[in-house]
Amino acid sequence: MIENFISYNPVTLYFGKACLKKLPPVLSKYGKKVLLVYGKGSIKKYGYYDKVVEELEDFQIFEYSGIKPNPTIEDVRKATELGKQENVDMVLAIGGGSVIDSAKVIAVSIAGTFDPWDFVKGKVQAEKTLPLIDVLTLAATGTEMNGAAVIQNVATNEKLGFFSPLMYPKHSFVDPSFQFSVSAEYTAYATADIIAHALEAYFGAGEPEVVDYTVFGIVKTAMKYGKLCMQEPNNYNYRANHSLAATLALNGITYFGKKGGDWGVHAIAHNFSMAFDTPHGATLSLTYPAWLRYHSNIIPERIIKLGKNLWNVETTELTIAKLEEFFRSVSCPIRLSDLNLTNEQIDQVRNLIKKNKPNGAHHQLDDEALNKIIEFMH
Amino acid sequence: MIENFISYNPVTLYFGKACLKKLPPVLSKYGKKVLLVYGKGSIKKYGYYDKVVEELEDFQIFEYSGIKPNPTIEDVRKATELGKQENVDMVLAIGGGSVIDSAKVIAVSIAGTFDPWDFVKGKVQAEKTLPLIDVLTLAATGTEMNGAAVIQNVATNEKLGFFSPLMYPKHSFVDPSFQFSVSAEYTAYATADIIAHALEAYFGAGEPEVVDYTVFGIVKTAMKYGKLCMQEPNNYNYRANHSLAATLALNGITYFGKKGGDWGVHAIAHNFSMAFDTPHGATLSLTYPAWLRYHSNIIPERIIKLGKNLWNVETTELTIAKLEEFFRSVSCPIRLSDLNLTNEQIDQVRNLIKKNKPNGAHHQLDDEALNKIIEFMH
Repeated sequence: MIENFISYNPVTLYFGKACLKKLPPVLSKYGKKVLLVYGKGSIKKYGYYDKVVEELEDFQIFEYSGIKPNPTIEDVRKATELGKQENVDMVLAIGGGSVIDSAKVIAVSIAGTFDPWDFVKGKVQAEKTLPLIDVLTLAATGTEMNGAAVIQNVATNEKLGFFSPLMYPKHSFVDPSFQFSVSAEYTAYATADIIAHALEAYFGAGEPEVVDYTVFGIVKTAMKYGKLCMQEPNNYNYRANHSLAATLALNGITYFGKKGGDWGVHAIAHNFSMAFDTPHGATLSLTYPAWLRYHSNIIPERIIKLGKNLWNVETTELTIAKLEEFFRSVSCPIRLSDLNLTNEQIDQVRNLIKKNKPNGAHHQLDDEALNKIIEFMH
Repeated sequence: MIENFISYNPVTLYFGKACLKKLPPVLSKYGKKVLLVYGKGSIKKYGYYDKVVEELEDFQIFEYSGIKPNPTIEDVRKATELGKQENVDMVLAIGGGSVIDSAKVIAVSIAGTFDPWDFVKGKVQAEKTLPLIDVLTLAATGTEMNGAAVIQNVATNEKLGFFSPLMYPKHSFVDPSFQFSVSAEYTAYATADIIAHALEAYFGAGEPEVVDYTVFGIVKTAMKYGKLCMQEPNNYNYRANHSLAATLALNGITYFGKKGGDWGVHAIAHNFSMAFDTPHGATLSLTYPAWLRYHSNIIPERIIKLGKNLWNVETTELTIAKLEEFFRSVSCPIRLSDLNLTNEQIDQVRNLIKKNKPNGAHHQLDDEALNKIIEFMH
């Protein structure tokens, strides 16, 4: 069955070696005053900051740094304030998903008159945004080519993924050599994120055959080049292949013929990051196998089709075992014990998962289902 | 090797049953006066015309009909004149590649002050366009989601494919049930076109692995559902799968990580349509195997990778044989004899091919190469 869908993606993507040379003419379309948003300084350590700033000679730069790996609404609020105060013309983000996601909300919030968290929660309808341009340094979330973001509110204990057509970057610059510095550990987590995105589309309603093939291709590519990047972090071709898989996993193409995806895994996984600051990819490798076990009797044919195409296996059990085997091979956690959580902590996250009922699951997840999924993580 | 690229595709695609219900609010953004462009009346016979016009109650319609299957610059000129005279606000095309390609040039030409052929030839730089909206009735060329067109000039004996960012449709409406009336013969030709587009991307410079998988998925889906649509033309699911393959084959996704494609096959094939009005898809099924034979020693590993992934064969010969076998199975021509051309006519087309030197070939095709390719068509 092919579902009705609407596709729209206005991002201009510049991909490749030295693509940053095109940054100045792009930015100059929007004005002179740039709010530069980045994380905790690794872009300075690895020279990416200098390479970007080199292209910004003709612009006036205001900096907001310190965006955290699990980005918070507090940082978004502060950066928004700075942007408003300085009356910037555009937002330029340098970083991975956390930084670019934050910058998406910052760009919309500077152009509005609301509290950014109200926008995240969908309580206000934003109508415009400042132009957002980004330079990607971590291929994982696909944020460079979509209108989605994930933001955490420490005060309310919520971590929310959401979408707005205003949040598409205007221009994204992806030079795979800016990913050379990603550690083996975080390359593995990035790979888990890519796989999760591809599969979350695959398990949504609708079975467009050509898109299924694309999903299998994304997962195969991510697994192969994820491992190769871990072995040879400075190999341009490896990073470029890995990076393309990340972009295609969440730029809308895998949603052709689909009525949305099944976002249950992300929704469950976010709670671990919130409770223990666990890296996003690690929460996904933990949650996906357990989620698949729970769904084995609900959507066996989809799971088996996946197994057949990826590993030439014919059962749900073997498919899940193969996925776990891959995650193990790149040292991603697949059991609660891998996270070294105490029983108390496990109770804590179980309660959090139940409280923040998972949004966007295709097959509803009630408390009993969530209990079972957590059981499968043991 | 992954090549640098820039991706930009601003089309909003509405896909699915009854998607036309969204037509009025979309059109009303642009004004009231609509230039309706279509072909030789089959859209009236099959009721598509009525279904579209039903949604146009609030608009003033000016019609230009009679666009030919191999569309000509003469029709583009006349439609442009009508659009200028009536001062239309937008162009609405109903049809397949010929109609929508023509409408692209018409929309740009109405907004300009040049002869449309000068725009086709790249002699003038157009700077704006009227909004183009289309309703697709034949899944083949991917025109609904790209900025390309092919137009023929009978006077100068040229048939040219070209691209302009101005030619992206603003909104495309694809209801697969509007494809039920496509005959088995033209469904086969459409399938040949989809396969050719996917392979022309595949054989361009650059070997992005995830994109290769997508290409293989497109070709497999087109072959499977092309045949199924021929058997059950009114099966929505079959048409929808076939249609998605057509869109993905030429909406830019297969050019991620590529330095363009290898458009040699299309460039050679166009000459047959020009000389004998041969259907576009039939010229491609004829040309592709011959082109592959000529390239067997130039790019053997790419041809073998294709064969392995599509048919699990391990040589260039077997790959080409399998492709021919598929074309034969859907009654697409693969030899000059299938077109019933006289020796005189073959000489005529050979001269035409040499005169209109093929543009966009990745590996240059000189006269000797062209002679060999034509030899392989025997």
